[in-house]
Amino acid sequence: MHFSSLDDIRAACRDLSPGDDAAAIAAAARQAQLTKPPGSLGRLEELAAFLARWQRRSMPRLDRVNVVVFAGNHGVTARGVSAFPADVTEQMVTNFAAGGAAINQLAQLARAELNVVPIALDRPTADFTRDAAMSAEDFLAAVDLGVRAVPSRCDLLAVGELGIGNTTAAAAIAAALFGGGATRWVGRGTGVDDAGLARKRDAVDAALARHAAILGDPLQVAASLGGRELAALLGATLRARQLGVPVLLDGFVGTAAVAPLARLHAAALAHCCAAHVSAEAAHRRLLEELGLASLLDLGMRLGEASGAAVAILVLRAALACHAGMATFGEAGVSERDA
Amino acid sequence: MHFSSLDDIRAACRDLSPGDDAAAIAAAARQAQLTKPPGSLGRLEELAAFLARWQRRSMPRLDRVNVVVFAGNHGVTARGVSAFPADVTEQMVTNFAAGGAAINQLAQLARAELNVVPIALDRPTADFTRDAAMSAEDFLAAVDLGVRAVPSRCDLLAVGELGIGNTTAAAAIAAALFGGGATRWVGRGTGVDDAGLARKRDAVDAALARHAAILGDPLQVAASLGGRELAALLGATLRARQLGVPVLLDGFVGTAAVAPLARLHAAALAHCCAAHVSAEAAHRRLLEELGLASLLDLGMRLGEASGAAVAILVLRAALACHAGMATFGEAGVSERDA
Repeated sequence: MHFSSLDDIRAACRDLSPGDDAAAIAAAARQAQLTKPPGSLGRLEELAAFLARWQRRSMPRLDRVNVVVFAGNHGVTARGVSAFPADVTEQMVTNFAAGGAAINQLAQLARAELNVVPIALDRPTADFTRDAAMSAEDFLAAVDLGVRAVPSRCDLLAVGELGIGNTTAAAAIAAALFGGGATRWVGRGTGVDDAGLARKRDAVDAALARHAAILGDPLQVAASLGGRELAALLGATLRARQLGVPVLLDGFVGTAAVAPLARLHAAALAHCCAAHVSAEAAHRRLLEELGLASLLDLGMRLGEASGAAVAILVLRAALACHAGMATFGEAGVSERDA
Repeated sequence: MHFSSLDDIRAACRDLSPGDDAAAIAAAARQAQLTKPPGSLGRLEELAAFLARWQRRSMPRLDRVNVVVFAGNHGVTARGVSAFPADVTEQMVTNFAAGGAAINQLAQLARAELNVVPIALDRPTADFTRDAAMSAEDFLAAVDLGVRAVPSRCDLLAVGELGIGNTTAAAAIAAALFGGGATRWVGRGTGVDDAGLARKRDAVDAALARHAAILGDPLQVAASLGGRELAALLGATLRARQLGVPVLLDGFVGTAAVAPLARLHAAALAHCCAAHVSAEAAHRRLLEELGLASLLDLGMRLGEASGAAVAILVLRAALACHAGMATFGEAGVSERDA
């Protein structure tokens, strides 16, 4: 699989499977027979049906769970938009390799295989207040890395990102796709101070003005205002859909990265579960725009798939009940009064 | 440990430890050094400090986690307040023993030991629309079963309950302690229909009228309007505090069961974390009255410690990060710009 043009991606979005209705219905029917009041496991019941739909089997499994974290560097950091120096992207990739980051601990706890994909860290994207962050070729190369990061046999994919400056890129994409300008979408990210926050807003507004001509084209928005790790995340999420792999999205940046897919095709993210809602306030707004209900609300704002990894645990809880519980008939428990 | 009178319980509530401030502060200081923006793990950071405070060590552990589920039967079921027949309490205890219930799967996933304590199921409490549900002696005997159910060595205790009719008892307790009558506190429980809901409201209002003389006394409320499994849950939660064991509360019934402790002493539930907020609408109101912030909101309303068991996974995530992550210094990652 390889997308050789933006049109290739557009075509793929027009040709997406709606998932397996019959498997989802069978899973829901099983839930109604398990020894509990119908519906009393709430979201856990919905998750069982969600996984059934996309894995195309009424008894879904989580034997092979993968977490992939894409990392990239951003020219817009020259605008003073982050609380951390740009070197931290590469330092954190080293920390991932050494097993010292949050996602290392969380992926291990969730029994998921972690794969970190640094993308051209020595070659930051252009400062998008002045130029397109990436050329179409650059963008497609990053998308392709995302496509190739999806294992062919995988029960669930959690996607995340790392990149100093990338909440600025995410805010720019969200503003381009959904309107409202910098004020609506810019937050403190890793913890920028008031002056930094003002610089961040200025950078986003400058980018929207500079790229006004392409704001109606979701993929050109992703290329001109995004970043390589966001592009890869878009590629991985689209490829997962083609392979029938359900996806856990992480925070604000991870959601903004795939938002262009939803603008190309309304149901393009139907195979995605929003793992959590970030403390970055713009994330809640973005999930609302996309019609995605978040699973967790733990005040997290770290990125690197950390919220998605916690959500894997909840999906495991859902399937433990779905697969392991006795039915009313098996257990000899009386059903509800007629 | 044995409470031989209601006054014994009142005295115990006046003599509660505030937990270990120094351990909580040390845990928070460690969090600030880990390779992530300060505060970016949100509730996970708070949970590490919470566990540190009550386990009295800056590096808390979850080696021994216990789930205890108390079961009881309720005379008020004669009023037609439940969607399920009263026999289901005992049938579900059998289902627990056979490993077929939700809590069996969830406790196993959370690596917690499950203990089910059925209490005099052949002897339902009195119908509290007419008499006190329990005598003081009956109540104290059930509290004592709860006290004895707390292991002397335990890193975390998740408490739950089972009892057909017990959302009616929980609503009666909440109304007695916090006012607002049946309308504010009665919901559909396991799924009662409109006529059943009306009977449930009538039962609670009748109970409030019948026991008007004792509504100012939280422990008499627990005895007169509660149930044996609720009393045991109160005893276990109080005993855990004495032993320095943090507690995960489950849903509406589990929270109502311990609410009398909070009325006796404002900080009596400081060692408790509200695992989730139930789909039973009264639970959210009750948590607000108690000043408890819930960890999860998954639309669950099953009881039997199921929400608490899912929350154990989140606590494990918190400690995985707390114990396993590298510090900025260890990883050679630059800290925030000064």
